Amino acid sequence: MTRRVSGPLLAIGGAEDKTRDRIILRRFVELSGGDEARIAVIPTASRIQDAGDQYRSIFGDLGVDHVDVVDIRDRSDANDDGVVERLEQSSGVFMTGGNQVRLARILGRTRSAETIANRNRDGVPVAGTSAGASVMSTVMVAGGQSGPTPRQKMAKLSRGLGLIDSVIIDQHFTERNRVSRLVAMVSYNPGLLGVGIDEDTAALISPDGVIEVIGRGSVLIVDGSRMQSDIENVNGATPPTISNAVIHFVAEGGRYSLDERNVVPQN
Amino acid sequence: MTRRVSGPLLAIGGAEDKTRDRIILRRFVELSGGDEARIAVIPTASRIQDAGDQYRSIFGDLGVDHVDVVDIRDRSDANDDGVVERLEQSSGVFMTGGNQVRLARILGRTRSAETIANRNRDGVPVAGTSAGASVMSTVMVAGGQSGPTPRQKMAKLSRGLGLIDSVIIDQHFTERNRVSRLVAMVSYNPGLLGVGIDEDTAALISPDGVIEVIGRGSVLIVDGSRMQSDIENVNGATPPTISNAVIHFVAEGGRYSLDERNVVPQN
Repeated sequence: MTRRVSGPLLAIGGAEDKTRDRIILRRFVELSGGDEARIAVIPTASRIQDAGDQYRSIFGDLGVDHVDVVDIRDRSDANDDGVVERLEQSSGVFMTGGNQVRLARILGRTRSAETIANRNRDGVPVAGTSAGASVMSTVMVAGGQSGPTPRQKMAKLSRGLGLIDSVIIDQHFTERNRVSRLVAMVSYNPGLLGVGIDEDTAALISPDGVIEVIGRGSVLIVDGSRMQSDIENVNGATPPTISNAVIHFVAEGGRYSLDERNVVPQN
Repeated sequence: MTRRVSGPLLAIGGAEDKTRDRIILRRFVELSGGDEARIAVIPTASRIQDAGDQYRSIFGDLGVDHVDVVDIRDRSDANDDGVVERLEQSSGVFMTGGNQVRLARILGRTRSAETIANRNRDGVPVAGTSAGASVMSTVMVAGGQSGPTPRQKMAKLSRGLGLIDSVIIDQHFTERNRVSRLVAMVSYNPGLLGVGIDEDTAALISPDGVIEVIGRGSVLIVDGSRMQSDIENVNGATPPTISNAVIHFVAEGGRYSLDERNVVPQN
């Protein structure tokens, strides 16, 4: 049921430390080959001009000489031979924050998206922060309200890049009340696992099907395997009853097995 | 393990509708005897002078002639013969919002508290909103920060009135990000059930051990029976890993069985 990833995926909850220890970004650099890394930064989620340059500078500080900001601005860029070639040369792909719907609208099912998926299947790590994390799954969080009570209208889903099938990734858990939203989203297809990532925290999803948590906060896993709900019978505003959601808050160093659907005991 | 209540407890999440349908307050009036009710209002949690008068007026609108605002201001009042007698004459006790620590500090283990518990054991309904809801359990939420990541420092517990043993009641779930806080509090004693009540929503805990949800939002139940955590090994600020918390969001009309530890199927 759980499709394993072939290369590592580093899903970052947004607002990662960029100036001090930078343990999350440093980990991405290591995974990408350290000093030898060739990192492609995709700033497409953001409408801010220098979103890519900021990461160029950070990865440079962390010892990476080859940082290529691949500024894909529309679907024609995303299908461009030159762009595809640049992505093929990368040993690590990093997607910035911004708006994941924008990212999916521009990249979705283009040659660039296909190339990123192929590179990842060949073992190349793909990282994304905030919108760049949400866009990784096949069905992604498209937005919607948050709040304490799950409501149908919270669950706006759309098609992501499909780097991982079995999860829905939500981010910025720290400042935005999203536990209920994630539970509501999982209730639409309880076979999916909800992964909610705090700010300055990352879920490193490895080819062996284990999620390792890195960073300051924690990662919330919502397991719907035993879930029951009446989500299809309520309207957008009325709260549903959703029972038997199993949740796990996993902190720094903790590991969660996608196959076992449980936290891996520490040695 | 679950101590059943003898009379109904109506735990309200705060900010209940006071001017329109008033379904929660109306339900309390019904439980207390309708037109024949003799309601004792305890405004002790609040430092606002007219907290009691507001409810006198609302219950009056709902057809109750006998509303007695029992203004217990210190422990000496709470042990006063006259006060005890007034509580003994009530067919329903209502505790207003405010600060539950103030309520427990003034009422805790006094003759008034004992009288309320005895009346409830004899079948008299006890309602409380916000602080008045939290104070009902033996170990209560004393306050503490909220936020998305469970942290040790979130879980400030103290001694409540002990009307119900088996739960911890948190309230104002609507506007305050408290899911993680409730999970953290349950992790200290996973034998307790966390009950988080949204604003304008109530959990009616019946003598048969069933919680019925009334109102606009939902009630979150956190079941720690299968929970594992390292809560004792982390400091106040570091997030713990807490796995296998089972949660249920129960909406209007939904029922949760304290004995079965599950949502009661609808007919």
